[in-house]
Amino acid sequence: MENNINLPRNNKKRIVIIGAGFAGLKLARKLSGSPYQVVVIDKQNFHQFQPLFYQVAASGIEPSSISFPVRKIFQTHSNLHFRNTELLSVDTDHQYVITGAGEIHYDYLVLANGVNTNYFGSDKLEKNSLPMKSTAEAINLRNRILSSFEKANLTEDPKEQAKLMSVVIVGGGPTGVELAGAIAEMRRYVLPKDYPELDFSKMKICLYEAAPRVLNGMSDNAGQKALQYLAKLGVEVHLNMRIEDYDDDKVSLSDGQSLYARNLIWTAGVSGQQTKGLATELYVRGNRLAVDQYNHVIGFENVFAIGDACFMEGDESYPNGHPQVAQVAIQQALNLARNLKANNTWKAFRYTDKGSLATIGRNMAVADLPAFKFSGVFAWFLWLFVHLMAIVGVKNRFFVFVNWAQSYFSRDQSLRILISPYRKK
Amino acid sequence: MENNINLPRNNKKRIVIIGAGFAGLKLARKLSGSPYQVVVIDKQNFHQFQPLFYQVAASGIEPSSISFPVRKIFQTHSNLHFRNTELLSVDTDHQYVITGAGEIHYDYLVLANGVNTNYFGSDKLEKNSLPMKSTAEAINLRNRILSSFEKANLTEDPKEQAKLMSVVIVGGGPTGVELAGAIAEMRRYVLPKDYPELDFSKMKICLYEAAPRVLNGMSDNAGQKALQYLAKLGVEVHLNMRIEDYDDDKVSLSDGQSLYARNLIWTAGVSGQQTKGLATELYVRGNRLAVDQYNHVIGFENVFAIGDACFMEGDESYPNGHPQVAQVAIQQALNLARNLKANNTWKAFRYTDKGSLATIGRNMAVADLPAFKFSGVFAWFLWLFVHLMAIVGVKNRFFVFVNWAQSYFSRDQSLRILISPYRKK
Repeated sequence: MENNINLPRNNKKRIVIIGAGFAGLKLARKLSGSPYQVVVIDKQNFHQFQPLFYQVAASGIEPSSISFPVRKIFQTHSNLHFRNTELLSVDTDHQYVITGAGEIHYDYLVLANGVNTNYFGSDKLEKNSLPMKSTAEAINLRNRILSSFEKANLTEDPKEQAKLMSVVIVGGGPTGVELAGAIAEMRRYVLPKDYPELDFSKMKICLYEAAPRVLNGMSDNAGQKALQYLAKLGVEVHLNMRIEDYDDDKVSLSDGQSLYARNLIWTAGVSGQQTKGLATELYVRGNRLAVDQYNHVIGFENVFAIGDACFMEGDESYPNGHPQVAQVAIQQALNLARNLKANNTWKAFRYTDKGSLATIGRNMAVADLPAFKFSGVFAWFLWLFVHLMAIVGVKNRFFVFVNWAQSYFSRDQSLRILISPYRKK
Repeated sequence: MENNINLPRNNKKRIVIIGAGFAGLKLARKLSGSPYQVVVIDKQNFHQFQPLFYQVAASGIEPSSISFPVRKIFQTHSNLHFRNTELLSVDTDHQYVITGAGEIHYDYLVLANGVNTNYFGSDKLEKNSLPMKSTAEAINLRNRILSSFEKANLTEDPKEQAKLMSVVIVGGGPTGVELAGAIAEMRRYVLPKDYPELDFSKMKICLYEAAPRVLNGMSDNAGQKALQYLAKLGVEVHLNMRIEDYDDDKVSLSDGQSLYARNLIWTAGVSGQQTKGLATELYVRGNRLAVDQYNHVIGFENVFAIGDACFMEGDESYPNGHPQVAQVAIQQALNLARNLKANNTWKAFRYTDKGSLATIGRNMAVADLPAFKFSGVFAWFLWLFVHLMAIVGVKNRFFVFVNWAQSYFSRDQSLRILISPYRKK
């Protein structure tokens, strides 16, 4: 075996972590100062704060306010190393990973590579719809919405205008609901000022959800309240409805009806990513890696999976697996860090549900806390506080706060910039 | 003729302005409230503050801090219209322009479409070097520098590392000098913290200039002082030297020598862009459009060119044309706006040189004012003040200021984010 990725050589046991999301980053930081050499591999050089992607898409927040260079976070931790490359495959017999830049030997391997958008096998949906699972995808969504409005302003054809101005969101989870709310607020407060020549009664915002309710992971109360807020903002919500096809701007629905929209945002499902070298049988529902209560990938002593990427067996409170949310990822990382440092007294993972929050718009949020459930302006402030505190780094927290405060009072940010990707002639 | 771009129809005479740079934007804003219908065409939906591109490239400032959505600027001006498309050609006989989105009739046409990077006919330089004439190009430069360091950290080959870490800048004008200084400051204060495993004695920053001095548009004093500052920051400056070729990371110099670098930034020249439908003879040195002292394109009563794109004949103080700087563009726009509004008493353009500034690094700037010339910390504060004041919009000015203040004290921004352009699978 050839280890051609440049890493300091010492006697420390090496932990290789794949992915710098909530799980991978938290684990690495908790192992700072431990007797391990920790190597984090990610194809992006930054940690992305996923819960606020929708704000980037709605031109409400800077991409850099929710993207944190991993090297900056690691600057003061001498046993943490970052390598900006992609995982290609794993050789568990010889304990190494193959990446786009070469091979790395490991003593412990932690797969924290999350999930990707799931189109349930539809090539057309994959090709024509807009996902929102990365900063680049969120920026692309922002560009797409802005350029649709620019195009609507260039044409005199009213049908074409309506198509360009309309936004269809598929999936009534937190991402879909929050995005629908944010775009509805853009329609109310921002877009008519930018495009005074367009008739905004033509702009439809439709949300489709296959289940009979929205915010499925939250209480009935929260789901009901979210529907009220969405109605207030003028979002057309269609429950018990699936998207069958999307081609040439035509959205085909499961009831046989159809509508036209240039912008279809897909937030309807996620799926794990299988890694070459790991047996297909290890991947269970939603392509998640089966793990035991210590996050060991079943059958391995030194390979772990944490966060969205794993499916934990044996927790009787969660027979269908834990929810794929940041809190589970962070708590699993904390538990695994503790176990790796403790060596002999390994502790099984137990999830403590601290509650869920979703914001639909200004002053409109829903909160399910363990003790009580509520909604409205206080839920919104709680949401703001929790997200602000969760964001890494003092400077960015301050900037995000100023950004939000400014947009709360003015409702009109200056971020509607359509920077096309650079291409060499 | 078919006018298929959607625009309000009224009795107002229409002025079509091509380009939302310093010249076009200033002209449009000065015509706000005038009896004209003003239509600004730009292929980008934002005004870009070119003097700070180099700070974006050096991860010191947000792209959005120096990019201003045109629609946001136009929000309160009902006779100003923006159309986000590209100029394809002009028909001066029938008074219309053809754009990527259709045709627009004009009563007056103003070409304010600036200049582009000039590679002096070298395809290899065009293909392999990095330009910095747009926000997207500045972001690309930032990505390129960061990804070179990530790659250097992945290899064990010391030659490859040196090549990846080295930066060659061609052109000793303000752009080249300011960028060289900013990258040298990154090397001193930021990069060694991010990449503790790399040996920074391998990182070369070389500046090549064909003339015997840098900052050619400024005083000898300023040029000399800039050289001292660059030397202090460890930039290797080579005067009287041209780049003959650049291929496969090899930089071939006019003295027969060569060196290796993965990153070559080209700031050595600009050229106007010829517009289809205008006679080639109208374009004079540097592909600039010949104009009279009222900015009429020679031979036309209702076609104008302003800013970098034009070459004014008849100003005996500037027989070689005005310098291609923001001040000239802005003053020409002001004069033309005045003339268009005055109708009968047209005034010839006279350039008032308010002086020039260039900053090489923290506390290191040079200033040539009409009254006196100076350098150092006061010049730096003057530079800061002038640029801050020049930036449109209170919010952005505040943000740029906070950004700068923060980077002045911490020397370590969190903007080293490598967002690859989004591509659909």
